[in-house]
Order: sequence, then C-alpha cells, then structure tokens
Amino acid sequence: MAQPQSLICKGCWQNMHVPIALRGPLSVPFRIAGLRPSRMNPNTCTLCELMFKRVMKATKITIDATILFADLRSYTELSQSMSAASMGGMLDVFYDECAGAIWDHDGLLNKTIGDAVMAVFNFPIRQADHARQALLAAHEIQRRVRARKAEAGLDFGVGIGIHCGELSFGEFGRSHRDLTAIGTVVNTAARLQGAAAPGEILATEAVRERVGELMQGSVGQPTSLKGFDSPIMLYRA
Amino acid sequence: MAQPQSLICKGCWQNMHVPIALRGPLSVPFRIAGLRPSRMNPNTCTLCELMFKRVMKATKITIDATILFADLRSYTELSQSMSAASMGGMLDVFYDECAGAIWDHDGLLNKTIGDAVMAVFNFPIRQADHARQALLAAHEIQRRVRARKAEAGLDFGVGIGIHCGELSFGEFGRSHRDLTAIGTVVNTAARLQGAAAPGEILATEAVRERVGELMQGSVGQPTSLKGFDSPIMLYRA
Repeated sequence: MAQPQSLICKGCWQNMHVPIALRGPLSVPFRIAGLRPSRMNPNTCTLCELMFKRVMKATKITIDATILFADLRSYTELSQSMSAASMGGMLDVFYDECAGAIWDHDGLLNKTIGDAVMAVFNFPIRQADHARQALLAAHEIQRRVRARKAEAGLDFGVGIGIHCGELSFGEFGRSHRDLTAIGTVVNTAARLQGAAAPGEILATEAVRERVGELMQGSVGQPTSLKGFDSPIMLYRA
Repeated sequence: MAQPQSLICKGCWQNMHVPIALRGPLSVPFRIAGLRPSRMNPNTCTLCELMFKRVMKATKITIDATILFADLRSYTELSQSMSAASMGGMLDVFYDECAGAIWDHDGLLNKTIGDAVMAVFNFPIRQADHARQALLAAHEIQRRVRARKAEAGLDFGVGIGIHCGELSFGEFGRSHRDLTAIGTVVNTAARLQGAAAPGEILATEAVRERVGELMQGSVGQPTSLKGFDSPIMLYRA
C-alpha cells in the first residue's frame, strides 16, 4: 500500500526544521526557485539532493545507515537474446517496483545502474529503525516483482543484499558532483546481493541484530565473498 | 589539456538546432527557467538530461554509441583498512580525473557507482568517431591517474573496458526516471572492465575496427566472460 505523498520535504524538515513545500499551491514559489520533489525520493526535495554541502555544512558526513542492493538476475544472459525494447520494458517494471517499495519505507533510491538498484535508509529522512525499514522494503520488492512476473509472464528474479553500519555519505567528486554513500558497508551489501539467489534476501549479522523478530530463527552461513579476507556470516531474511 | 567550456549547449544545438546559453549574460533567462550546465557534461544542459522525452519525442531511442567503464582497483580490499575520509578523497580524485578526460572528448559521464564510472559517447553530443574519442578518453584517464598516483603517493590502479554498437538510450523507469543506456553493448563493456588489469584498457573487435591506427598491432585474445555463452575476442588498447 503506497504512502500518501508528503506536502513538505521530510529531509529538510528533519535536518533543518525548514518547511519546503513540495505539493499544493504553497509549492509554487519553491518551484520557481528550482526546488522540486527529488527523483531519488519524492518526499524529499532537490535541496537535499543537490545542495548537500550547503545544507549539512560539510561535503561528507559519517552516518549509521542501511544499504540495500537489488538486481535483476540473468540480465546479461537475457540481453543477448531479448530485444533492447523488451529489456527496457523489464527495467522500467523493475525500477518502478523498487522505487515504490523503497519510498514506502522512506528510503532513498540513490542509484540505478543497468540491472541493479542501490538504496540508502536513514538519510535524508532519519529513521531510528532504518535496518528494519530496509528489510521491509526488500520483502516488498520481492512481493511486487513476483506479482508483476506472474501478471506479465516475464521470467525474472531479483537478488537482494542488505548491510548496515557507519558509512560515509555526501558529495563525491568536485567537477562531477554525485550524492552517494561509500565504505565497507556499501561494498559488503553489494557482495551480498551478488551472493543472493533469485528471489532471495541476504543480510548480515549486524542487520539481524537490529530487526528483532523479523529474522528470528534465521541461521547464519559463513560465506567467502570476493575482496574480503575472512568469511562473512550471511543470513536469509 | 582541457577544452574551453562551450557557451551554448552542444547537445540541444546538434539535436534540435536550439541555442541554449550555458554561460555569460545570455544564460540568465535560461537559468531562471531552470536550464543549467548538466552535471553529466558541462557542455550540455539539464534539458538534455531531464527532458529527454520532450526533446527526442520518445522515451528511448536506439543509437550507435560507445560505452566506457572504468573502475578503481582493490577498492573493496582498501575500504577495509583505509578510513572513510581517505577513501572519499581517493574517489574525489578518481571521479574528477575521469570527468575531465571524458568531457575533453565530448562524452557523457552517465554514472558513478562506488568505485566505477560509466560514460556514453555519441549522445547527446553526436560524434562520427565516438569509438575513437572513447579510446582517447580512456588513455587520458590512465595518464591522469598515473600522474595523481605519483604525486599523492596513493596506491591505486584503474581498469577500463570499451565496447561499441547499437544500444538503447533514454529514460528508464517511470516513477524514478533515469537517463541511461542499456543492452548487450553496455553489459559487455562492463565485463571487459572487470577483466582488465590495473592500468589496462581492454576493447572489443568492434572498437578496434573503428579506431584505425590507434590499435594497430594489438592482438586479440579469446576470453570467456561471465554471462556470455562463447568467448569474446579482447584487445589491449
């Protein structure tokens, strides 16, 4: 069930206590000033996205956050036999369902690259239970994709990886500024996604500890991941 | 050597013969209307980037283009021992040097994701010799990164993959619209980047055929790539 769209930017409200109107007649002066709903999350504004430095008084901040990676499986294989138009249609469905699920849980759809999506939970909208919200979004993505798959007769599955902890969030690059998150937490989440089977959600110990009953009974499996010296405990969520 | 910055948007001029002023006093009315230099290429404008559908009269078009992927090697390994601040500084350098090299050759810095960069050549700025321009940009990236590495005493290398051919370019997703390229050409270029050693540029037969003397004498190596049924001929460029 989709959340109603917010009338003011939740990010600016939480971080600066400034009400930026996103919708309705009060939004007109903001739109003229170039402030619109962000494409990364329609309940935040382009100020959150484009003027991170001005808002946060730093180019990069260290935050505790949750990262979710989801990707369409068999995309490389399919791209060799399917037409670009069919592949495009499949991506549209995938991006839209991921966006809906992520935004329902106040996450930021930070990146889409080819067959993968990366989301950040806990910025710009703050959430005490960001790991839990990310996991709920992950289940929602799997549910939505299964429904669309059955409906459209399309054959695809989605693999999801989730990890949480301290990471660096902000603007990277000077000439090409880009708002994103980096650090081991991000790389680990990406590797988990790579290790997930179609339809599966893999999470770390750190996530399991924070989501309470949602992952009760899930048994860890020590798994070697590329680029990591020692095996990491992975949990099916 | 950096190109002088263009006074009008090269993309809008080539594709629509409309002069959108990017710099100087004539740019003021355009800025008020929300048209600014694009972050993907400062010689194109946000109209090219945000209103692809309005400009091209289609959400997606099939074009002949060249894709370049570059990534920072050992990033996952380094992220476990280096501080987030140092990693951020390294990424700033990497993104900036990639951006400079790509823009000097009229490419579009379409994506940055973690330790990787993806560029498209031949849109919105049209180039008859896009494969050649991409290859020149790749050499320029390697040259710049080597210089910065020596200067800063940082230890990193960059792997680059290039492929060209028909691909689907345009807006993907409806709720979260994203301007990007998809298709086998994109996936192949990404796999080539994965196969490249630090400091190396790998290109396909298709690229070699188009760049003339730049790759004369390069001998192909049949290589198996993940997701591809048969081995692909790779050339060191």
